[in-house]
Amino acid sequence: MRAHDFAVVDSRRSERTGYAEVVYCAGKTVDQAEAIIKKMREENLPVLATRAVKDLAGRVAVFAPEAQYDELSGVLSIAAAGKQPPARGLVAVVAAGTSDLPVAREAALTAEFLGSRVELIADVGIAGIHRLFDRLNDIRRARAVVAIAGMEGALAGVIAGLVAVPVIAVPTSVGYGASFGGLAALLSMLNSCAPGISVVNIDNGFGAGYQANLINQTGEP
Amino acid sequence: MRAHDFAVVDSRRSERTGYAEVVYCAGKTVDQAEAIIKKMREENLPVLATRAVKDLAGRVAVFAPEAQYDELSGVLSIAAAGKQPPARGLVAVVAAGTSDLPVAREAALTAEFLGSRVELIADVGIAGIHRLFDRLNDIRRARAVVAIAGMEGALAGVIAGLVAVPVIAVPTSVGYGASFGGLAALLSMLNSCAPGISVVNIDNGFGAGYQANLINQTGEP
Amino acid sequence: MRAHDFAVVDSRRSERTGYAEVVYCAGKTVDQAEAIIKKMREENLPVLATRAVKDLAGRVAVFAPEAQYDELSGVLSIAAAGKQPPARGLVAVVAAGTSDLPVAREAALTAEFLGSRVELIADVGIAGIHRLFDRLNDIRRARAVVAIAGMEGALAGVIAGLVAVPVIAVPTSVGYGASFGGLAALLSMLNSCAPGISVVNIDNGFGAGYQANLINQTGEP
Amino acid sequence: MRAHDFAVVDSRRSERTGYAEVVYCAGKTVDQAEAIIKKMREENLPVLATRAVKDLAGRVAVFAPEAQYDELSGVLSIAAAGKQPPARGLVAVVAAGTSDLPVAREAALTAEFLGSRVELIADVGIAGIHRLFDRLNDIRRARAVVAIAGMEGALAGVIAGLVAVPVIAVPTSVGYGASFGGLAALLSMLNSCAPGISVVNIDNGFGAGYQANLINQTGEP
Amino acid sequence: MRAHDFAVVDSRRSERTGYAEVVYCAGKTVDQAEAIIKKMREENLPVLATRAVKDLAGRVAVFAPEAQYDELSGVLSIAAAGKQPPARGLVAVVAAGTSDLPVAREAALTAEFLGSRVELIADVGIAGIHRLFDRLNDIRRARAVVAIAGMEGALAGVIAGLVAVPVIAVPTSVGYGASFGGLAALLSMLNSCAPGISVVNIDNGFGAGYQANLINQTGEP
Amino acid sequence: MRAHDFAVVDSRRSERTGYAEVVYCAGKTVDQAEAIIKKMREENLPVLATRAVKDLAGRVAVFAPEAQYDELSGVLSIAAAGKQPPARGLVAVVAAGTSDLPVAREAALTAEFLGSRVELIADVGIAGIHRLFDRLNDIRRARAVVAIAGMEGALAGVIAGLVAVPVIAVPTSVGYGASFGGLAALLSMLNSCAPGISVVNIDNGFGAGYQANLINQTGEP
Amino acid sequence: MRAHDFAVVDSRRSERTGYAEVVYCAGKTVDQAEAIIKKMREENLPVLATRAVKDLAGRVAVFAPEAQYDELSGVLSIAAAGKQPPARGLVAVVAAGTSDLPVAREAALTAEFLGSRVELIADVGIAGIHRLFDRLNDIRRARAVVAIAGMEGALAGVIAGLVAVPVIAVPTSVGYGASFGGLAALLSMLNSCAPGISVVNIDNGFGAGYQANLINQTGEP
Amino acid sequence: MRAHDFAVVDSRRSERTGYAEVVYCAGKTVDQAEAIIKKMREENLPVLATRAVKDLAGRVAVFAPEAQYDELSGVLSIAAAGKQPPARGLVAVVAAGTSDLPVAREAALTAEFLGSRVELIADVGIAGIHRLFDRLNDIRRARAVVAIAGMEGALAGVIAGLVAVPVIAVPTSVGYGASFGGLAALLSMLNSCAPGISVVNIDNGFGAGYQANLINQTGEP
Repeated sequence: MRAHDFAVVDSRRSERTGYAEVVYCAGKTVDQAEAIIKKMREENLPVLATRAVKDLAGRVAVFAPEAQYDELSGVLSIAAAGKQPPARGLVAVVAAGTSDLPVAREAALTAEFLGSRVELIADVGIAGIHRLFDRLNDIRRARAVVAIAGMEGALAGVIAGLVAVPVIAVPTSVGYGASFGGLAALLSMLNSCAPGISVVNIDNGFGAGYQANLINQTGEP
Repeated sequence: MRAHDFAVVDSRRSERTGYAEVVYCAGKTVDQAEAIIKKMREENLPVLATRAVKDLAGRVAVFAPEAQYDELSGVLSIAAAGKQPPARGLVAVVAAGTSDLPVAREAALTAEFLGSRVELIADVGIAGIHRLFDRLNDIRRARAVVAIAGMEGALAGVIAGLVAVPVIAVPTSVGYGASFGGLAALLSMLNSCAPGISVVNIDNGFGAGYQANLINQTGEP
Repeated sequence: MRAHDFAVVDSRRSERTGYAEVVYCAGKTVDQAEAIIKKMREENLPVLATRAVKDLAGRVAVFAPEAQYDELSGVLSIAAAGKQPPARGLVAVVAAGTSDLPVAREAALTAEFLGSRVELIADVGIAGIHRLFDRLNDIRRARAVVAIAGMEGALAGVIAGLVAVPVIAVPTSVGYGASFGGLAALLSMLNSCAPGISVVNIDNGFGAGYQANLINQTGEP
Repeated sequence: MRAHDFAVVDSRRSERTGYAEVVYCAGKTVDQAEAIIKKMREENLPVLATRAVKDLAGRVAVFAPEAQYDELSGVLSIAAAGKQPPARGLVAVVAAGTSDLPVAREAALTAEFLGSRVELIADVGIAGIHRLFDRLNDIRRARAVVAIAGMEGALAGVIAGLVAVPVIAVPTSVGYGASFGGLAALLSMLNSCAPGISVVNIDNGFGAGYQANLINQTGEP
Repeated sequence: MRAHDFAVVDSRRSERTGYAEVVYCAGKTVDQAEAIIKKMREENLPVLATRAVKDLAGRVAVFAPEAQYDELSGVLSIAAAGKQPPARGLVAVVAAGTSDLPVAREAALTAEFLGSRVELIADVGIAGIHRLFDRLNDIRRARAVVAIAGMEGALAGVIAGLVAVPVIAVPTSVGYGASFGGLAALLSMLNSCAPGISVVNIDNGFGAGYQANLINQTGEP
Repeated sequence: MRAHDFAVVDSRRSERTGYAEVVYCAGKTVDQAEAIIKKMREENLPVLATRAVKDLAGRVAVFAPEAQYDELSGVLSIAAAGKQPPARGLVAVVAAGTSDLPVAREAALTAEFLGSRVELIADVGIAGIHRLFDRLNDIRRARAVVAIAGMEGALAGVIAGLVAVPVIAVPTSVGYGASFGGLAALLSMLNSCAPGISVVNIDNGFGAGYQANLINQTGEP
Repeated sequence: MRAHDFAVVDSRRSERTGYAEVVYCAGKTVDQAEAIIKKMREENLPVLATRAVKDLAGRVAVFAPEAQYDELSGVLSIAAAGKQPPARGLVAVVAAGTSDLPVAREAALTAEFLGSRVELIADVGIAGIHRLFDRLNDIRRARAVVAIAGMEGALAGVIAGLVAVPVIAVPTSVGYGASFGGLAALLSMLNSCAPGISVVNIDNGFGAGYQANLINQTGEP
Repeated sequence: MRAHDFAVVDSRRSERTGYAEVVYCAGKTVDQAEAIIKKMREENLPVLATRAVKDLAGRVAVFAPEAQYDELSGVLSIAAAGKQPPARGLVAVVAAGTSDLPVAREAALTAEFLGSRVELIADVGIAGIHRLFDRLNDIRRARAVVAIAGMEGALAGVIAGLVAVPVIAVPTSVGYGASFGGLAALLSMLNSCAPGISVVNIDNGFGAGYQANLINQTGEP
């Protein structure tokens, strides 16, 4: 059998889409992830790695002491030198419950890494809806909102009825029984009767943060 | 083959459960439904028939001119003579959208038939949540709330976070695509993070009205 | 990133709904759950925590020696001072099999914590239906019945055909193969042909006990 | 393209399995079904055709005036000459509701055609369980029981806990919403906690009647 | 029963979210839809109605001859007087196949109604991927891309790997068999390995056009 | 809370159904299972326990040294004194693959315990169908056949086309990917186009062995 | 809105893949399909259209009298002038039942159109497996086998265990109840324990015929 | 109970299908797998074992030191003596991501073992589609392509639109959330709008490699 490299870094990605490739660590061995990150750093690409385990963070710290690691979300990042200044607008990341925090931090850190200012607001689920109303002014200052919820996932629809900017909804796998690993929240968000919502995969904080940052950059020079 | 009667009226049901049997017409031929209703009336049982088509209503009117028929919901009823006075409390039936009205009316007419006072509030879905807040005082007067919604089904959870009485949630098949015939709303309601909600089958306005009336009667002499 | 508190205790919940917030521990770290419980106790809120692991119970015992912990169900509670007297009525918690006991105890302890008298009846599944009939008089004394079953989940429908009060059905994940983690019991209960049933999420003993207590309190001054 | 006959009558089936092939009409055109039945009769095979529409029955009557047709179930049959005497035992076909009658009659007519004595008992669903107990002695006389129910499908499990012979359970598509076309009843029956149940496809009255007759013939000379 | 209006026009929606309420006609009777549109026009609200049947369009033409109706998509609109000038940027609506056109036109007409310039590009599915590359320059001029596909739904992911702006993906119900009414395309889009995609409900052209317009307006004064 | 015994042995089961209750150990603690078995033995009931872990077998051996334990299937049994002689007929248990053996042995040991003679034939799946034909004469001697298969589950249908007695089909969870834990085999068996098949739950060797023994006993004095 | 052509004929497809584009008519209006076919014929492309309704065939006959139309399968074709000679090998299309014929003919006509010799063998399902063995020599002469079955879908696995060439399996939507529109057959075929099977979408006779022809052409000059 | 051998080696398989039986180790104990491999080697059958754990490889090395084991994929093989020369054509195995490598290697090693030349190309997923185009010439040299992808699974459809040979698509369980263990990729591949694709089970690298080799051998003498 003639076999080729196990990973092909998409170094032209930045030209096409404005951002370098991101390393999704969950399906890779620690060895594979480490090798990819090392190679990206050698090519002076900014590194954003998601679902990184602590062991990987330790290994990366050896050759990249400036790397930052958030254990709760598993986000590991190495900022590029000469980073551009943050976008004018703000991204609000709003999470329904304490258990949604790992996903929320993944979203927030992703958007921040890519150049957005971010405000993270947690534990404002609809069971006590006044908590959300208390923070509505903060949320309304954003150019894009990431709404994160597990269980019934109703938070996104409620927010979309209250703001004038795009809402990126993230269902989480928080829940049990008939939540079916986040399916209930996913379907709820897809069926929202308030317009202005679009949805990413269950627990995909990264994807939501990425999309919110893209929106925040819209119209920027 | 030795075959028996196609229908066995459960005339002892009232002794066991406090209410006579109800005729669910959807799976029966019009002939079968008519025969059952005729028999129940002959036994002086109060008649509540759901999902009745207009043709059946016409036939019943021939032998029971006092029968009442609501075309939108398909509820047909013949009140028993000597009906007991209404319960002290109120049942609120709250529907998210105009399209949920057939189910909402089935719930409201059922609870009313069984002895409850009922208030029906429609088109207060969460996409414009202030409409719900405008009616909150009316809703809070009830001893039991029936919350009806299709699509994302978030209304029930929002209400349960705002009232101090049991909420009976009814998902409806209103929606399209990933609503999967009401599955999205059903799962959403089952996963509500607000306590004080229990759920009935998709489009089961009858079951919700029945349960709400039972709750309303609790503690009555 | 500007981040806010990881948990916002809904201290106004009691005014709105009559009961303080409940701590669902399953998605939280032990540290998070401990911090929330400590804070609630400092605010003199009664504490009910579900799905609590033994380690958490040990930590809570340090600062709240009066806390009670049921290992089988994972219910941990700290009664509020000056608890109001129990409701006049009774809640019956009926479980189909021995394996349903953790969920049954969660329901029973929840209803009791909130002010109901509770009777717990186990192992009366429909495979030997006479066991249920033997206990029918006990069950009929209740103002609300919680019916708990896994596998085929038929118990709830059988009971609802025999009593005159609301039945709150709890499907459990007990079973294997085509029970699909409780889905079979859930669908069975949602499709019950006996009226007077409403359903909560799979394994949601807490939700059922909460709802049964609400019903039991209906009409109380 | 070289194409062969559209239907190959399995005329050796009787030798292998004791019974001739049965014609399932639902997926065939009326022309195809008519041709197959004509051919079978020419070969002196007994004919049992299920899901036959009225038009087909009319056509068959032209060349086989002795054919019998049951419109409710769609069963069409032409008994073989020299039919063997009925089995010693009895098959009981028990249906939960009036709406399950088409399936119940398919089961009953199939078992009868194949040589069993049959008793058909309808409308004894578990919502009014005393109706079932009233007929228990009749049911207990059978060597095999076919239990037919839609919606929650609990009837089969209740019967299996009360009789000492095999129960063949038939879920039906009677219901709406979360019955998902009979899926709820199917799963319920597969998960029955009472042993002595095996299950056939949704609405498969034919399969259940066939299996019950096989059981009834067991041990016959 | 005390019943309230069947529809509550959310006339404050514009203040909250920048746009007036939209009339989703599918679940409403033609009478109900007509009444709502008439009321909105009387309040001088701009009218956008989706899934409108031809009969409704005929009725609306009577009292609002300036209304525009697109039969393929069912979009009916009455522009508000004094409409604001179009946004600076462009929305590209890209559809995989001819069969996706009704959804694509719903998206395009929605974005246009709300103030965006729109370019609609059809029949560029990935089975002949060069057709997409031929149009890539057109697509890259947009500030937001709506990518519409049924069957396998791969178009959205391919586009997202090629552009630097947000992609709103719309799965359609075009397909058969294991497309399960659009489920295959929905799951495919949710699992895209290219970032910069978020997804709306199956066939929800309206939602995608709305979201794309919101994005296009980001940063506008 | 007033709580009752955690387990109610159904000691009248034998009168009703001919066989004593069976202990399903999977959902019970070892302590609970041990207590139930001890109690049944004290009442001189024959004991059949399924899904028993080795630890339980060790504990039971202390007070019931005559107990038999099959580790592969987890079946533990204590024969009743004065066991009746075996039935005249034979039960054939036929398994598609080596991996299906645990379920096959559960079926075989159950039928044997209840009084049937049993022949167990393994690894005759349809990928090499001649292996099945080689054993056909053995299989045809049986009064009832248990057919066990995972993956595609086709074995049951093939056998049913070849024998003249009832086939009890058992889908197993053997497989991966789109077998979805046995769902593929389950659906395949339910949809068999050969009549004479009825199906039990995934991996339910016990249920199949029980049903096959019931059939084998049919017509016995 | 700037809109482009509703259909872009992929006229370079032949260079890339060896075959011209095929017109899938199901999602298109008759007008659209007619226009596409007319355009293809003007470009001298061979035309294969699937799921064509009779009305379309009539219209095409007007401008292309040489077109051939098979009503049972809906296949419409216009052979290219100067068609290449048929491949050396044979494609066998084997269908389980009479009801699978429309799909089988779609497969057979597709493979034939693309240059294969085809033999179509119907009604050899596994319920009477000797019918399959009777035709085994015919099947073994083929270079590729298309195996078509609904219901349990077991035919493909049985054949794959008996031949030495690739089997392309086509599940059909023939069946009812738990066949779930062909899902049972699809899963069964995907889980086949015999190697040498690959599967196409439910009812996708076209795809199977296309793939079988490709295989048949392998190694041809 | 009379029990037979736990495994029946299908030693005539080679005559029927051209290849010896393959040992699927996942459902077997290490003891069972070892015994089967030993027996096959004694009969001089070539051995291909998939999903073999390292422990098994160690045991096999004792009695078959020439065995080869690939830890990443779990493929263990013992080539037959006098292996026939490789086929004239090439099989290309193309994998979307690094995480798909275990499945890709299973496919590649299987095809190679059976006599094909193989080229393995990894990490060319559609998020950076130029990576695929860079390798297109390599891929186009093959007689059959195995396309492997998790998540959205779009790779197979893109390739099929670009090559003129059969594509065997393998969905993998790589992904999270709404990938539902590979279901998203499976459905995507089944619904591909490009013809020339057929699909095997999720993660079934073996099946794809086997099928690709069969195709590669087509027309060989």
